[in-house]
Amino acid sequence: MIIVMQSKASEDQVGAVVRRIDDLGLKPHISKGEFRTIIGAIGDESLLRPEFFAGLAGVDSVMPIMKPYKLASRDFHADDSVFEIGGVRVGGSGIVVCAGPCCIESDDQMREAALAVRKAGGGMLRGGAFKPRTSPYSFQGMGEEGLKILQAVGREVGLPTVTEVVDVRDVDLVVRYADVLQVGARNMQNFRLLTEIGRTDKPILLKRGPAATIEELLMSAEYVLSSGNHRVILCERGVRGFETTTRYTLDLSAVPNIQGVSHLPVFVDPSHATGRRELVVPMALAAVAAGAQGLIVEVHPHPEKAVSDAAQQLTPAAFAKMMNELAPIAQAIGRQVLAPSK
Amino acid sequence: MIIVMQSKASEDQVGAVVRRIDDLGLKPHISKGEFRTIIGAIGDESLLRPEFFAGLAGVDSVMPIMKPYKLASRDFHADDSVFEIGGVRVGGSGIVVCAGPCCIESDDQMREAALAVRKAGGGMLRGGAFKPRTSPYSFQGMGEEGLKILQAVGREVGLPTVTEVVDVRDVDLVVRYADVLQVGARNMQNFRLLTEIGRTDKPILLKRGPAATIEELLMSAEYVLSSGNHRVILCERGVRGFETTTRYTLDLSAVPNIQGVSHLPVFVDPSHATGRRELVVPMALAAVAAGAQGLIVEVHPHPEKAVSDAAQQLTPAAFAKMMNELAPIAQAIGRQVLAPSK
Amino acid sequence: MIIVMQSKASEDQVGAVVRRIDDLGLKPHISKGEFRTIIGAIGDESLLRPEFFAGLAGVDSVMPIMKPYKLASRDFHADDSVFEIGGVRVGGSGIVVCAGPCCIESDDQMREAALAVRKAGGGMLRGGAFKPRTSPYSFQGMGEEGLKILQAVGREVGLPTVTEVVDVRDVDLVVRYADVLQVGARNMQNFRLLTEIGRTDKPILLKRGPAATIEELLMSAEYVLSSGNHRVILCERGVRGFETTTRYTLDLSAVPNIQGVSHLPVFVDPSHATGRRELVVPMALAAVAAGAQGLIVEVHPHPEKAVSDAAQQLTPAAFAKMMNELAPIAQAIGRQVLAPSK
Amino acid sequence: MIIVMQSKASEDQVGAVVRRIDDLGLKPHISKGEFRTIIGAIGDESLLRPEFFAGLAGVDSVMPIMKPYKLASRDFHADDSVFEIGGVRVGGSGIVVCAGPCCIESDDQMREAALAVRKAGGGMLRGGAFKPRTSPYSFQGMGEEGLKILQAVGREVGLPTVTEVVDVRDVDLVVRYADVLQVGARNMQNFRLLTEIGRTDKPILLKRGPAATIEELLMSAEYVLSSGNHRVILCERGVRGFETTTRYTLDLSAVPNIQGVSHLPVFVDPSHATGRRELVVPMALAAVAAGAQGLIVEVHPHPEKAVSDAAQQLTPAAFAKMMNELAPIAQAIGRQVLAPSK
Repeated sequence: MIIVMQSKASEDQVGAVVRRIDDLGLKPHISKGEFRTIIGAIGDESLLRPEFFAGLAGVDSVMPIMKPYKLASRDFHADDSVFEIGGVRVGGSGIVVCAGPCCIESDDQMREAALAVRKAGGGMLRGGAFKPRTSPYSFQGMGEEGLKILQAVGREVGLPTVTEVVDVRDVDLVVRYADVLQVGARNMQNFRLLTEIGRTDKPILLKRGPAATIEELLMSAEYVLSSGNHRVILCERGVRGFETTTRYTLDLSAVPNIQGVSHLPVFVDPSHATGRRELVVPMALAAVAAGAQGLIVEVHPHPEKAVSDAAQQLTPAAFAKMMNELAPIAQAIGRQVLAPSK
Repeated sequence: MIIVMQSKASEDQVGAVVRRIDDLGLKPHISKGEFRTIIGAIGDESLLRPEFFAGLAGVDSVMPIMKPYKLASRDFHADDSVFEIGGVRVGGSGIVVCAGPCCIESDDQMREAALAVRKAGGGMLRGGAFKPRTSPYSFQGMGEEGLKILQAVGREVGLPTVTEVVDVRDVDLVVRYADVLQVGARNMQNFRLLTEIGRTDKPILLKRGPAATIEELLMSAEYVLSSGNHRVILCERGVRGFETTTRYTLDLSAVPNIQGVSHLPVFVDPSHATGRRELVVPMALAAVAAGAQGLIVEVHPHPEKAVSDAAQQLTPAAFAKMMNELAPIAQAIGRQVLAPSK
Repeated sequence: MIIVMQSKASEDQVGAVVRRIDDLGLKPHISKGEFRTIIGAIGDESLLRPEFFAGLAGVDSVMPIMKPYKLASRDFHADDSVFEIGGVRVGGSGIVVCAGPCCIESDDQMREAALAVRKAGGGMLRGGAFKPRTSPYSFQGMGEEGLKILQAVGREVGLPTVTEVVDVRDVDLVVRYADVLQVGARNMQNFRLLTEIGRTDKPILLKRGPAATIEELLMSAEYVLSSGNHRVILCERGVRGFETTTRYTLDLSAVPNIQGVSHLPVFVDPSHATGRRELVVPMALAAVAAGAQGLIVEVHPHPEKAVSDAAQQLTPAAFAKMMNELAPIAQAIGRQVLAPSK
Repeated sequence: MIIVMQSKASEDQVGAVVRRIDDLGLKPHISKGEFRTIIGAIGDESLLRPEFFAGLAGVDSVMPIMKPYKLASRDFHADDSVFEIGGVRVGGSGIVVCAGPCCIESDDQMREAALAVRKAGGGMLRGGAFKPRTSPYSFQGMGEEGLKILQAVGREVGLPTVTEVVDVRDVDLVVRYADVLQVGARNMQNFRLLTEIGRTDKPILLKRGPAATIEELLMSAEYVLSSGNHRVILCERGVRGFETTTRYTLDLSAVPNIQGVSHLPVFVDPSHATGRRELVVPMALAAVAAGAQGLIVEVHPHPEKAVSDAAQQLTPAAFAKMMNELAPIAQAIGRQVLAPSK
């Protein structure tokens, strides 16, 4: 950590910083420049917080040198994390396409969607039983009944299932039915939920919050990892921007950006990011070209009848076409779209 | 609700929209322009969702005319909501300054802060017992022990208390100790938490999320209101922006903007918004001039020793000076800073 | 255009809106809903501006139905605009990669770069002679001497050239030397410059400003088009976001988003958007997968010696590798990377 | 400047950085930490650019210690810059309210506005003769005829005048008629324009661009200052945000934030920032409470007839009421609203 003193900082103020570094068991290292004094704190920076110094008189700014996350970083785990979920390998050079309706609406709807996903080469099945809705007057999901449908249909078609958990009190329930627990964008910094799911043995799909920096996303992953659960998939799904013709601004540069500093697999959700069907496919292809290790795409047998997010769900035919276009792009960069073997 | 058709929409596509409006029990109203057909859905718009139409073929865009929130709107409740909390009137033309340390650290620290707040004319006491921290390795708060300190000190100095609840499972616990339940910015769309606190009889201080529009903030308030709790205070605390020298970008125009459409009291938190002590006071004064009905300000007896947010906490002396500057500004716009009478 | 009245608007206020629509030669169309009156203005909306109504008493909001741009829209020109520049076809299903150094530094540097670009299959040569620099103390470019180098080297290797013009007084000068005039992101709303280059017969490469919506970008293109110059290429190069580890946030969804409403070719600049060499290649591949009709990429023979933007310029070897990966991705979506034939 | 090496940087890579520092005539200072090597470059940092190091192998990040602006900084000029413009003192503890219509429309309109501004205590008169309009089809201003009106009316009522210059070729013309040259937000990084107006002897009102950081604003001021013109007023007018109910997000914390690092006066434009009349007054009051040294407010004798920005212009009555509320707020923080003496 580097502490930059104000140009007029006194000797006493420099001394106070040095003493605090000493107190913390690190070694201070003073550089007196022509204009300012700069103090390095040498040693295990994980013992430090910028706030230990930011409050001291005469301090201009505090610059951490080390990343604040550990278990999520490539310094801790140099190679890509790769793990198996229900017969599909996630991470590394494989690409897994997780698809299904926004909301589980009925047994028929789910089965029709699942068969279409399976047939087109999808690797996982998604569907929401507990829906975080902006309005209290919107449909909030089928709850446990929906989970049962998802599990049954997933087994029937041979696809592992992903569903969102929105309440710490539901974690045990969802664990009984789903193969992957999803944490939605709005809950990315629901730290209690992160800690609870970190205690389960299910893989986690953690979505980036719309105002979260990449460092904050990795810090949230760190909550899960440090609770003992090492199977975390990160998911870019758009950040809040000023453009009004798309719902969010999909930050695809986050894919290689995260992969440079973290070993965790990175997925992309083009459906929620854009909110518009005609943009979903180009963004799915672009995500794969950017190096994404998976996608989450909304597919509904009859999007025009969907109870939520009608404008962004693909028809089975559009999804199948997308999967056909994906394969050669994956190949072009030495990757491969994966699905459960049987 | 207005449905704008694409310029090449067919008669059949127009017909499908009209049929759906009929099905929903509203009256369609067709305007054929030179370039496009526009369809109005006349009747109780609260029965409608844009997604009922956005998925239909030939639809270009869907424009709601009514606001999606009801109980929070001035259409529902024309006058300012005013309610009493522990002897202080909140809302309307009064201004309540809620102050105290970021984090409850000890009995002594809390008492020293509380006495300073009370003496300078503060109207409520704040302090965090459960802290939502970006890093799992940071101090997460004293928990119930902290709540006990807060309650005892609040009673001692005669100030109602505000503290954050971060977990649905803690609601009952916090209700036992605090006078106002705070929902932090990161939990603004933790809908389960909103519903649970909506079932309590404690007033709620709901902070705006860093990526939340004003409409989204009011929809979150709507969760609380529609659960039966009508005492909701909204709080602007900065939105995510691109400027790196402040923590967030404080959107003070949100104060009159919200007050124009909602009857709920609007507070401002200049401490978390800026993250820098020297900006807290000017922003506190500006918030009052903009019409804020309250402030939340961090005050610590010894900021340089604080375990969190050291750089943004005011000393008791700086806080007292701020309170002195506030009074005439409040007066200039016909308002008054309020505190419990005894 | 639709004018939504406030819920308490009087008959007189409605009458005033209706009169103004009449005055403008359009036909008013009144829908009285249960809660609000909505007034449509039927006829040629291009005669209208929202501000004609926004200032009237009783008006809640004004919603334009038609896009404010005309010549740039697909309503005006349904098919993709395709035009030839120095032997390369731009627009439609072709992909043109424009590459070269950020800044023209010397004859040798430019030649070395140009040969590398040509050899790897690049379709145009870029290089800055007039550099818009944030700091007045930074190198501002070689000026006319640089233009001469660019022209000579472009002819030598057989590539048309692109260079930025930053001053209306330089337009004639740059026209004499370059094949394409670039308008940088910071000048996207320098309307005088847009008008001047709109009077030349050179194709224009117009970059999106970092805070510009897609509609604003198209309105800036409209300045050029309405001045008589129909060969405009739009370029996404990142918008301002809150993430600090990239320079800008590349909005790749802008590519299909713009292509849906406009016939103009859309390029992407991954170099300025990310500012980091290791992100340039993944974003270039993603841009092509998203449907971009061209790229602008910075290539420098010796990036570590570059006078500007050192961290984002590719080496010739990295560029050649990128071009090899691009080809099969283009093919996967039915497109082809193009270069001048000889 | 501090250069942080990657954790796996080799001795050779460290050596290359050290050599470059030596070559530039500065002194390298190496700190070998447990995890990383950090190199300081001691000496006159103004000789350095981050790009001198960012391109070198093994470099993780480069952190400037000194601000990149000089003449605009308090290090260069510790006290507030104060200068006189047509009988009004700008800067320091005074507050100058500049008001007038968005657009000069006629002699009568301008005179009526000017008399209202003067009577209510305004200190300067504004009016646009050259308007930067998003659409080429919108009214672009009266040009020189407008300038003549502005000058004549300004002299008549005894107020110095402010008007925008949008083209380097118009600088001489505008200098002949106006007392202050305004650079609009969209031209904040039109560096040629900045250089040209920097050569005049007129004070400059420089607006912050909607995507500009505070540092970038100060760098643009540096262009003017380093061209020899020391009378620069900075103006916050809202940055691009995601909220759709206001035009921009007014960043009032920029006022004390800039004042902390720069000696230049800081004004605020609440009219363009919000775009809504009912938000202009609260934001004007808040700006003064935040410490702004001036305001620019749009006032039109008949806003409902204005040719541009109708929804945001105040009536003379509303402006007079605002001025009455401003005075005691200014007083509360030890400041005073100023106007020309006669």
